[in-house]
Amino acid sequence: MNILAICGSLRKKSTNMGLLRFAQANAPEGSTITIADLSAIPFYNADLTQKPAAVDALLQQVGAADALIFSCPEYNYSIAPALKNALDWASRAPENALLNGKAVALMGAGGGMGTSRAQYHLRQVCVFLNLHPLNKPEVFANAFAGSFDGDGNLIDEKVQATINTQLAALVSWAAQLKK
Amino acid sequence: MNILAICGSLRKKSTNMGLLRFAQANAPEGSTITIADLSAIPFYNADLTQKPAAVDALLQQVGAADALIFSCPEYNYSIAPALKNALDWASRAPENALLNGKAVALMGAGGGMGTSRAQYHLRQVCVFLNLHPLNKPEVFANAFAGSFDGDGNLIDEKVQATINTQLAALVSWAAQLKK
Amino acid sequence: MNILAICGSLRKKSTNMGLLRFAQANAPEGSTITIADLSAIPFYNADLTQKPAAVDALLQQVGAADALIFSCPEYNYSIAPALKNALDWASRAPENALLNGKAVALMGAGGGMGTSRAQYHLRQVCVFLNLHPLNKPEVFANAFAGSFDGDGNLIDEKVQATINTQLAALVSWAAQLKK
Amino acid sequence: MNILAICGSLRKKSTNMGLLRFAQANAPEGSTITIADLSAIPFYNADLTQKPAAVDALLQQVGAADALIFSCPEYNYSIAPALKNALDWASRAPENALLNGKAVALMGAGGGMGTSRAQYHLRQVCVFLNLHPLNKPEVFANAFAGSFDGDGNLIDEKVQATINTQLAALVSWAAQLKK
Repeated sequence: MNILAICGSLRKKSTNMGLLRFAQANAPEGSTITIADLSAIPFYNADLTQKPAAVDALLQQVGAADALIFSCPEYNYSIAPALKNALDWASRAPENALLNGKAVALMGAGGGMGTSRAQYHLRQVCVFLNLHPLNKPEVFANAFAGSFDGDGNLIDEKVQATINTQLAALVSWAAQLKK
Repeated sequence: MNILAICGSLRKKSTNMGLLRFAQANAPEGSTITIADLSAIPFYNADLTQKPAAVDALLQQVGAADALIFSCPEYNYSIAPALKNALDWASRAPENALLNGKAVALMGAGGGMGTSRAQYHLRQVCVFLNLHPLNKPEVFANAFAGSFDGDGNLIDEKVQATINTQLAALVSWAAQLKK
Repeated sequence: MNILAICGSLRKKSTNMGLLRFAQANAPEGSTITIADLSAIPFYNADLTQKPAAVDALLQQVGAADALIFSCPEYNYSIAPALKNALDWASRAPENALLNGKAVALMGAGGGMGTSRAQYHLRQVCVFLNLHPLNKPEVFANAFAGSFDGDGNLIDEKVQATINTQLAALVSWAAQLKK
Repeated sequence: MNILAICGSLRKKSTNMGLLRFAQANAPEGSTITIADLSAIPFYNADLTQKPAAVDALLQQVGAADALIFSCPEYNYSIAPALKNALDWASRAPENALLNGKAVALMGAGGGMGTSRAQYHLRQVCVFLNLHPLNKPEVFANAFAGSFDGDGNLIDEKVQATINTQLAALVSWAAQLKK
């Protein structure tokens, strides 16, 4: 199973990227987790007649994925634009073919509520995109409570365990949706 | 009264920009409406140690504004990233000084629900930013029902009247909040 | 397949109940749709040591259902309390056993946005309850545009067709989730 | 200043009621806080041709209030029905006259997120009702972390301080809105 992970933060020591690195290193047996590179993805603009190469690469990865992971920072009580923008680009494939019907896991690292406000907005986005996010477990990591080291690596064992549970659930859920 | 208007769509014939052009041409007496230019604003990234010039210009406009208008496209049931990103940049001034306590009017042009789903997400963003959006009237324009001409100009008289009502309400609301 | 339908409006000529009557009369082959009676369900109160008989009856119906339909009025931009309250009662069975993992279809009749604001709140409730609402088609009926007769019966053929599509999707989705 | 407080939980030892008792005992100088009694308020039903006496009493209190406090439990990631229902009744006065334009403070006690999910839904309700909820400070009390005694009394000094700050802000905000 081929899982694509997308992170809404662009900074190097992002704790949200740290969640994805942990997930990648702990991919369930039989699955691989690829982390998308959003650094060169421009804002979606219907006037752009040619898709930039970075967008093409992202869309190929999305299309090839059996399941998705979104690591969702919360900026000002909603979704980080870089993540939302990646999904907006992906949604523009004809008939939403790249995203339609896929299983998704959501996670996030932020303040005390662990980006929950942003994640509920992201769930509403999934309705339109016909994505199927896991209901449980939700992953809400507190970035200011010793859960990460100075490079953004996840060191909190409880959050690690929740992510491992979530990854197993994602693999089952994706398999269920393909039956 | 100095009002700054920010549009979430970057394309030239944007109907959301059309709403703002109408607002600008119909600014209440004693007020002027400036439309921000987001075309060169990059994604917010905490690693950027120097603010790009376009960001500096935007932040100066935000700081100088007595009130704000957000024209909010709906992409995939949530906020257009370019608008959210502009607010994320503006929020990074120390102590949220540029936005804190200001009056806001929300409008949007989109499908049959007129970007309402995105506007309710945007209202949640305003909670954190301590912005005070008008409750009424809400402006929901249907971009596919003859409300705009081919260049994105607003021609629907009912929506025009609602915007005029909203602009008057915004001026009163901003004055109220400064008392 | 045994489908339980729950309506958030208690009035006799409710258009939301009209949606359910149409659904019931057009249940897909091999399925039956039962409409719950909420008229005697009190507000949930943890101090009530004995479940009222009407609650017991509702909970038995929920437990026996293979799938659920929620007809969701919108009161003041959110969920009608009678519907939310029925779900709150149902959620109190140990380990959420009555609701856990079930397929759901959402519909609603209201103003011009067809109760969409309430339905998105209801979708967030489904996350906690581990219910799986269909993403598509969404059913948004305008109760003030000739879609219903004076007794609340659905007469709009387009909405009827959408409900038929949704019911077929619900049966497939429920079967998928049980595989 | 006459402040009316409404609690969404009906049980005797409710921690949400505990928040309101603390607020009542610490009403800012020159203000009094009355706590509404919802125990006999039935579900709103447009078929009820006569308002029950308990509803009449509530509506008189709402009409007489200069400002409001809503103590908002979170049931299944959204608003407790008893609170929503009280607002639905209040909204039915002609032209929304009882609620229109009033200042509101929101608070809540619940799990680790302190009913935040429900409070954001409640903020959307306030848009339609033209209520003006304070943006800050938000009051999110954790009911399972020693913040309350066995009778639901608030004993957490940090939450107490936040409520005191919020009450002062409410009085200022209500005065501001009346200028």
